[in-house]
Amino acid sequence: MRIVVQKFGGTSVANLECMRKVMEKNKKILDQGIKLVVVLSAMSGETNRLLGLARQWSKNPDPWETDALVATGEQVSVALFAMLLKDNGIRARSLLGHQAEILTDCSAGRARILGINSERIMEYLEKHDVLVVAGFQGCDIRQRITTLGRGGSDTSAVAMAAALKAEMCEIFTDVDGVYTTDPNICPKARKIPRITYDEMLEMASMGAKVLQIRSVQFAKKYQVPVHVRSTFSDEPGTIVTKEEEGMEEAMVSSIAYDKDQARVTLMDVYDEPGVAANIFAPISDADIVVDMIVQNPSREGRTDMTFTVPRGDLDPTLKILERIKTEIGAPAVVHDAHVSKVSIIGVGMRNHSGVAAMAFTSLKNEGINILMISTSEIKISILLDEKYTELAVRTLHETFGLDRSDAT
Amino acid sequence: MRIVVQKFGGTSVANLECMRKVMEKNKKILDQGIKLVVVLSAMSGETNRLLGLARQWSKNPDPWETDALVATGEQVSVALFAMLLKDNGIRARSLLGHQAEILTDCSAGRARILGINSERIMEYLEKHDVLVVAGFQGCDIRQRITTLGRGGSDTSAVAMAAALKAEMCEIFTDVDGVYTTDPNICPKARKIPRITYDEMLEMASMGAKVLQIRSVQFAKKYQVPVHVRSTFSDEPGTIVTKEEEGMEEAMVSSIAYDKDQARVTLMDVYDEPGVAANIFAPISDADIVVDMIVQNPSREGRTDMTFTVPRGDLDPTLKILERIKTEIGAPAVVHDAHVSKVSIIGVGMRNHSGVAAMAFTSLKNEGINILMISTSEIKISILLDEKYTELAVRTLHETFGLDRSDAT
Repeated sequence: MRIVVQKFGGTSVANLECMRKVMEKNKKILDQGIKLVVVLSAMSGETNRLLGLARQWSKNPDPWETDALVATGEQVSVALFAMLLKDNGIRARSLLGHQAEILTDCSAGRARILGINSERIMEYLEKHDVLVVAGFQGCDIRQRITTLGRGGSDTSAVAMAAALKAEMCEIFTDVDGVYTTDPNICPKARKIPRITYDEMLEMASMGAKVLQIRSVQFAKKYQVPVHVRSTFSDEPGTIVTKEEEGMEEAMVSSIAYDKDQARVTLMDVYDEPGVAANIFAPISDADIVVDMIVQNPSREGRTDMTFTVPRGDLDPTLKILERIKTEIGAPAVVHDAHVSKVSIIGVGMRNHSGVAAMAFTSLKNEGINILMISTSEIKISILLDEKYTELAVRTLHETFGLDRSDAT
Repeated sequence: MRIVVQKFGGTSVANLECMRKVMEKNKKILDQGIKLVVVLSAMSGETNRLLGLARQWSKNPDPWETDALVATGEQVSVALFAMLLKDNGIRARSLLGHQAEILTDCSAGRARILGINSERIMEYLEKHDVLVVAGFQGCDIRQRITTLGRGGSDTSAVAMAAALKAEMCEIFTDVDGVYTTDPNICPKARKIPRITYDEMLEMASMGAKVLQIRSVQFAKKYQVPVHVRSTFSDEPGTIVTKEEEGMEEAMVSSIAYDKDQARVTLMDVYDEPGVAANIFAPISDADIVVDMIVQNPSREGRTDMTFTVPRGDLDPTLKILERIKTEIGAPAVVHDAHVSKVSIIGVGMRNHSGVAAMAFTSLKNEGINILMISTSEIKISILLDEKYTELAVRTLHETFGLDRSDAT
């Protein structure tokens, strides 16, 4: 049995007209004699409406009851869509999380999928051509409804594709694929036909607009090919897949950026074991995610510690530092809310030296000062003054030949 | 373990303020050390909103998907209400139909309850003081969501009380109990403190405004005492219960009426075996419910057949009769859309002769002409010209002493 999984987000099921377009996409697959699992989100705005109700009802909404509440959003989508399919002579039925037996752990609001009863679903697929599965939801071992947190429906779709060994997981969205960089600031950005899981993961915030990071991790783990494409056209989008051996990889596949950054420098903290833990443990306890961290020795027995946090978390971070100041050596605290991070990503980087040097040179030629650098195996991130963001993106995009159609 | 079941309808959970009032009713029971099962309907208007969506999506909405869709209404109510209780320090959790394991038959939209996993619910009651159960819904053996049809939440509550052997099933509604007759047309109508299941059933359309007939049948079968009372006061309402032996019953407990009646008379049909079937089978096939039927011999080999149907079904009924006219002896068809039915109800009637005579005499004294009579063991129904309805109700209410406080 050939199976494809298709996932549609909230804007794709916002109303009857949208759902009719989804049905047309379904038919293209069905016409090839392929069975379909369609994973849907709640109609756009519905989840927020339900969360608003919860906040109105309770100053501290119980997470389990919140899950039971918001799960109705997807339930409405799948029931209406299955109705529409049946009305058009397609053998379809809806499946909620507990009916598809999408077993999760016992974490309300941010559950992880433990398993899917694929045998049961294969039975359903014998009798139906389309199974319309509620995204974002599952149930735990005690039969409680759970939701998967942000990007949950993408994860549902990838998990379903993994469990059913589907030949493709198509994620329909409002962009038509993954680009070499943000086309809004770099008109020469091009759609990438193929990208590896790792590259997609490193694209972080930029990629997340297209596909939730968690679902990419899941896809990588189970080697599910994911096709990110537009709801509004029939053009192919970007296929996220494993790295193909023997194939020459482009050195750099994309340039990402993130303006939601603020930099904090602690000058002259004690340079002794445990000082980093003393600084970052209380910040982490406050649920603040620290991104880049750099440590430079300053003078005898002292060191400078620089790190970045999301811009909105700068004030709480400074308050925490004020509190623990003496403990870590009463350093001078310097901060800058107007920085941004530009990243150069590519699995090909591993086999090519000089990517960093090329990047630094091209930025220097434009007179852009580098504030901080951090690197991973397939990514180089550079912190710079926010005002240079667009210039830096365009410069690096050209430097690594991404605006040439033969580049990827 | 002492257990009480409380059921609240859509207007009682329409918003946060209403739900707070429901919580106050809960607390009165909890303060006595009694465990509670609270059965809720969807917030008022929600079920109709969802059904409207279904009709918009499909010209002939699939009944199974419709059930999955409308079941979200109760799901939202129970999640929000459980949140509110927890916020107020009450150990509560919500249970959907499939979680409470309310097993039904496989009839979408009008399922019948086959059983409830009471052991499972008793386990939940060990850990929680309030279980908030979604009314109106269950699931079938294939794990599909089913709904119970009109009055479903009342039936859910009674079934839950039966399964848990609760000491009382309290049905909160917007009236404060069952009255000797409609207070809107008879200001002397009084609230009945106690009424038997059979009397409640015979009150048919009048009683149904208070408590769905189906739930009364269920209560009778499992001998569940049902307390019908007002959401908006703390006054006791009406307890619907079994007939207590040895107790002297009031001869008549209430006067009901139904203006939704039309009368059809077929004159001179063949008086031979099977003629009634020939007339009523096609009417029944058209889903028209015939209420009263009277047959009078007219002349040799011929008979008059008179019956009543709901007023809105008069025209289709006449069309059917036109079709089968010759078959049944080409009778003259006479009809009257302006009739109403007044009923005298009381289990005490069984042991008292003369109720019918008393009724006919008092109507005659008011100059009211009787068009048709039908009787059961505990009910006498009289068809009369619609314009006499109110006068007849008031006259009979007084005749049987229902306006005296010692009458019931």
